[in-house]
Amino acid sequence: MNINKYSFLDDYSEGCHPAILQALTKTNLIQHTAYGEDEYSVEARSLIKAQLGNLDSSVFFVAGGTLANIIIISSCLRPHEAVIAASSGHIVVRETGAIEATGHKIITVPPEDGKLTPNGIQQALESNAHFPHMAKPRLVYISNSTEIGTLYSKAELVALSKMCKANHLLLLLDGARLGAALSAAKNDLTLKDIAELTDVFWLGGTKAGALLGEAIIINNPSLAEDFAFHIKQRGALLAKGRLLGIQFVELFKAAPFKSALYFEATKFANEMAQKLSSAIEECNYPLWAQTETNQIFPLLPNALIESLQEQFDFYIWQKVDSSHSVIRLVTSWATDEKKIDQFIHCLRRSVA
Amino acid sequence: MNINKYSFLDDYSEGCHPAILQALTKTNLIQHTAYGEDEYSVEARSLIKAQLGNLDSSVFFVAGGTLANIIIISSCLRPHEAVIAASSGHIVVRETGAIEATGHKIITVPPEDGKLTPNGIQQALESNAHFPHMAKPRLVYISNSTEIGTLYSKAELVALSKMCKANHLLLLLDGARLGAALSAAKNDLTLKDIAELTDVFWLGGTKAGALLGEAIIINNPSLAEDFAFHIKQRGALLAKGRLLGIQFVELFKAAPFKSALYFEATKFANEMAQKLSSAIEECNYPLWAQTETNQIFPLLPNALIESLQEQFDFYIWQKVDSSHSVIRLVTSWATDEKKIDQFIHCLRRSVA
Amino acid sequence: MNINKYSFLDDYSEGCHPAILQALTKTNLIQHTAYGEDEYSVEARSLIKAQLGNLDSSVFFVAGGTLANIIIISSCLRPHEAVIAASSGHIVVRETGAIEATGHKIITVPPEDGKLTPNGIQQALESNAHFPHMAKPRLVYISNSTEIGTLYSKAELVALSKMCKANHLLLLLDGARLGAALSAAKNDLTLKDIAELTDVFWLGGTKAGALLGEAIIINNPSLAEDFAFHIKQRGALLAKGRLLGIQFVELFKAAPFKSALYFEATKFANEMAQKLSSAIEECNYPLWAQTETNQIFPLLPNALIESLQEQFDFYIWQKVDSSHSVIRLVTSWATDEKKIDQFIHCLRRSVA
Amino acid sequence: MNINKYSFLDDYSEGCHPAILQALTKTNLIQHTAYGEDEYSVEARSLIKAQLGNLDSSVFFVAGGTLANIIIISSCLRPHEAVIAASSGHIVVRETGAIEATGHKIITVPPEDGKLTPNGIQQALESNAHFPHMAKPRLVYISNSTEIGTLYSKAELVALSKMCKANHLLLLLDGARLGAALSAAKNDLTLKDIAELTDVFWLGGTKAGALLGEAIIINNPSLAEDFAFHIKQRGALLAKGRLLGIQFVELFKAAPFKSALYFEATKFANEMAQKLSSAIEECNYPLWAQTETNQIFPLLPNALIESLQEQFDFYIWQKVDSSHSVIRLVTSWATDEKKIDQFIHCLRRSVA
Repeated sequence: MNINKYSFLDDYSEGCHPAILQALTKTNLIQHTAYGEDEYSVEARSLIKAQLGNLDSSVFFVAGGTLANIIIISSCLRPHEAVIAASSGHIVVRETGAIEATGHKIITVPPEDGKLTPNGIQQALESNAHFPHMAKPRLVYISNSTEIGTLYSKAELVALSKMCKANHLLLLLDGARLGAALSAAKNDLTLKDIAELTDVFWLGGTKAGALLGEAIIINNPSLAEDFAFHIKQRGALLAKGRLLGIQFVELFKAAPFKSALYFEATKFANEMAQKLSSAIEECNYPLWAQTETNQIFPLLPNALIESLQEQFDFYIWQKVDSSHSVIRLVTSWATDEKKIDQFIHCLRRSVA
Repeated sequence: MNINKYSFLDDYSEGCHPAILQALTKTNLIQHTAYGEDEYSVEARSLIKAQLGNLDSSVFFVAGGTLANIIIISSCLRPHEAVIAASSGHIVVRETGAIEATGHKIITVPPEDGKLTPNGIQQALESNAHFPHMAKPRLVYISNSTEIGTLYSKAELVALSKMCKANHLLLLLDGARLGAALSAAKNDLTLKDIAELTDVFWLGGTKAGALLGEAIIINNPSLAEDFAFHIKQRGALLAKGRLLGIQFVELFKAAPFKSALYFEATKFANEMAQKLSSAIEECNYPLWAQTETNQIFPLLPNALIESLQEQFDFYIWQKVDSSHSVIRLVTSWATDEKKIDQFIHCLRRSVA
Repeated sequence: MNINKYSFLDDYSEGCHPAILQALTKTNLIQHTAYGEDEYSVEARSLIKAQLGNLDSSVFFVAGGTLANIIIISSCLRPHEAVIAASSGHIVVRETGAIEATGHKIITVPPEDGKLTPNGIQQALESNAHFPHMAKPRLVYISNSTEIGTLYSKAELVALSKMCKANHLLLLLDGARLGAALSAAKNDLTLKDIAELTDVFWLGGTKAGALLGEAIIINNPSLAEDFAFHIKQRGALLAKGRLLGIQFVELFKAAPFKSALYFEATKFANEMAQKLSSAIEECNYPLWAQTETNQIFPLLPNALIESLQEQFDFYIWQKVDSSHSVIRLVTSWATDEKKIDQFIHCLRRSVA
Repeated sequence: MNINKYSFLDDYSEGCHPAILQALTKTNLIQHTAYGEDEYSVEARSLIKAQLGNLDSSVFFVAGGTLANIIIISSCLRPHEAVIAASSGHIVVRETGAIEATGHKIITVPPEDGKLTPNGIQQALESNAHFPHMAKPRLVYISNSTEIGTLYSKAELVALSKMCKANHLLLLLDGARLGAALSAAKNDLTLKDIAELTDVFWLGGTKAGALLGEAIIINNPSLAEDFAFHIKQRGALLAKGRLLGIQFVELFKAAPFKSALYFEATKFANEMAQKLSSAIEECNYPLWAQTETNQIFPLLPNALIESLQEQFDFYIWQKVDSSHSVIRLVTSWATDEKKIDQFIHCLRRSVA
């Protein structure tokens, strides 16, 4: 990262919401029980459960998303059981084989708009039915928002949930960017819906303004049994669990629920993305994927990309032809709107 | 933890050094590269390497100690290779089988004063030589300070290192409390010595005043190859790696080296422990283990223990007979000296 | 192995019962379904279940004992669960860390006469109760006959079974030499007893006269679910499963049950061991362990050992002092009684 | 399997070559060293190495193909390393996730004629280069003959070998049906070529007329180090290793090399397949894959398939449309030529 450029590389280039730093400072010297038994973690669990409207769910905090996926999946499955995921899933392409490292095969199917569909699950089941010579599909993994920033509608999640129940499959939702999804203009899901429709999900703090930390929410009580052992065995039980508890208290302490910092922060990121996306469309540059949350994938001429790179950092996502590429722009709770304006200015100048 | 009591349960009941919070606040909104490539992490690695005087070592940061042990051990060993450890080792008794979960057997031998000896290693080698029907010993694990607060002298570490080299064994030192060890009155080791005598070690931030974070230092270059993959695969690559980098900069930025916050903080903890320990001995209560660092194991009458429990939290370590037990008291960088005085007062009153 | 010497090294130095070779030859060119669905395997399962008197048990065949232990243990346990075993257990000292390689810790306790006791289990539970920082004990592993040839009595097995049930522990009996145990003079257990008292056990063919093959018997129906997947995943599903089926038909096809080749063969081995053992005692050489089955552990002068080594192969089990050692002698279904006589002759001459 | 039907289901429905049974019978009561150190195994290793013309290769025997793949792959790779394979590879679709169960990801690419190509490897490398967020490709897995019976030419294997060397990739050839490949009319490879072009391969006994057993041949000496530990740890070290040694002596003892039973047996299977395949083509039924070895994939009308099923057992491989399907027919060393004639008769009648 060049410090002279503004970064749209990701939504984790800054530290955290100032409110979190204030809370850490205020509580710093108070002694608390270790390993997640502190008062803040207890309160954070209550706040999240209140959002769910489901007092039977269990809430656990871990430091990062790959840890969350490792712990959830390896604690759910017996050795011969496999995961079904979209081939674009984070566990498939960005976790260094972490799930396979716990011993489990991932069966992949092509995504549609970045999403797994009941039809995809059906294909996976049919092509993996030669038992016992094939691993047994047992858990379905989806991400919301997806790896390309798209959203599951309530109808889509209901359909996946039914498909899973009908086929004795567990449903796991990776919510690294669940804040962005739930704050999206098009979203019609609530945390309560998600708790009712999945066996387990996690909601990401890191990409919503925490220093680190993800909350795992287990809705299927049989999966919660002995879960703390798995957290510890995978190295995810922080001695100073208060660090996670304090942050999630800040993110969820507001009333009414919708005004929680978690949603405010991700909503702002979405709005910045929408502003940028609209300007891109106004300039008649196509979008490689719909801008539904805080990720934007414009298809731009390479010459423009090079010119933008003088002032901004972002990923070249995919080469399209010899003179065009897709880039990825990510906004966050901390995005400087002036930089959005500056970026739009460059775009407009290019088409002037 | 009862908030009306003062806790000597552990050295991670408070948050972090105020200097760390200040640094986090000051840098909070500056954008930095993710995944440990930020400037603070780069600087922290330099500062630690400067302490080692060994520019060939590689430094990596992870969130916690069990993660450090998992990643180091599983990246070093082939599937048939085993670890030798004292039966009191943290990986043996407090990590929920995390090492075995990566596929490796731990061969245990009884400790002497909490320490592994060349003789213990020799026994492990001799009783595990029926190849290929036995796992092959390949890595020796020690902790400094040990799980009961004792220290390895330089002569002891040299002897272990020689023993390992002579037997084609890797030497790993778990430094969860390495700060306490190096700040101890009796210590004659430096970080440079440890870098020269081990293949890999890690030094703990959590128990030395960081919010979280441990620094892994690889001195055997062959073990550093591809190490970043293992960090990522085990879920330990924090998106906001700056959180670790900033903290280790604060802990090690001082000049001269010895005045680094890392050593100042742990030295204070040791001094508080020494004060308490001396008072215990003056009261003629025996110590179950030597007080060499920040852990104290007095053997007390149960009646006194119960009385102390009205004001203080601590662990009952071991029942000795029907009327006596060993308790564990731990001091830290944040220990309130007035509470030490108050504890000593209770002890003196008991023998008055 | 020196072909000019007679071997008492083990009970697998010869091929197989001639009856097995005849059956293989007779059925050789008949086509049969692969992967253990052949008629012989079906019949063998019936024959074994008839011996158990328990039609709810499930029977599976695999090629070897380590495979049996790997498959049983890894299919039974969740990742955080541990095994309790005697420190002399085969899985502890002779399987190259195979159980740990599946991710599970083994908690060891000292044996008494080679056996695990309820008291040993109690100790293991008490010293592994600091949850979730310790792996959770879940399965108890015993061998009958034990690694030193001793036997569990019915009372002992009942006590272990009760202890396990009371503590939510599964009980696994490794029967690599179960034939030797059940044919022993002192034995008061039946296969039916063992089926009732354990969750799962396996009975060994290899050491009872088969070319290879062990029968896994699952008595706790919840453990049988999907078991075939685990057999396949661990590489133990033989394409020509008939090879295992045919052998177990031969070993168990007799009526009445007690006259099955399985028991006849192991009984002969025990008788040969008894003859040898009695002669050793008559010569006033002490036994390091009771001769209860087909293993004999005499403590002999080194000079005599060297002289015996000119004619016989056997293991030096343990050095006792500068002039004495324990050796291990193993008899089998194929032992040549004339060689027993020759060995006894050497012993007698040594004390003449 | 219906005993009234003749089976073309696979090449492992019968026992073994009569010569093997004779050798087992003849040697049955001779004592030999256990665990693969017997004289027959020693001789079998020499015979295979003589075929290779490469005395630096190491030869090991295991009971089955999945075991061979598990042991080879898990012993070669560090935890973060991945396998590249065709999506039709046996390890991908018929081994119950056995490779993932050892912790390793398999990166799949579409096959061409059942084969992996350098272009496929290139694609896998390019789409898995985002290090360290992706597992690192390290081993390429191919099967010869392939899962659909096709062959690698020498030119193709040379190209793959070069591609692997250029990219620091190990090359593993699964030879479950290597006999069929090397005996094929179109084949231009020798065992020596394969030894020179791969790091490790295995040649299958089970599908070439053994009761069980596969020979692993390691040509890259660094991979042979400590290999015996892995065999033992995965449960593949047979106590009576003689059973494998004796069989491979019979399969390879002939001089000159080409007349070895291993090649005679598989050549016969190929000839039977060719006869059947030619008749299918003469009847103008298309072949879904080229008949290059002992597997035939005719595309037939469902009505004919049903009629054939009255007399023969075979797999329906794939539905093509509402009235046609592909079936799989497999011949073997034991195929009864009269049954081939009978099958051809049915085909001809159908088009008469």
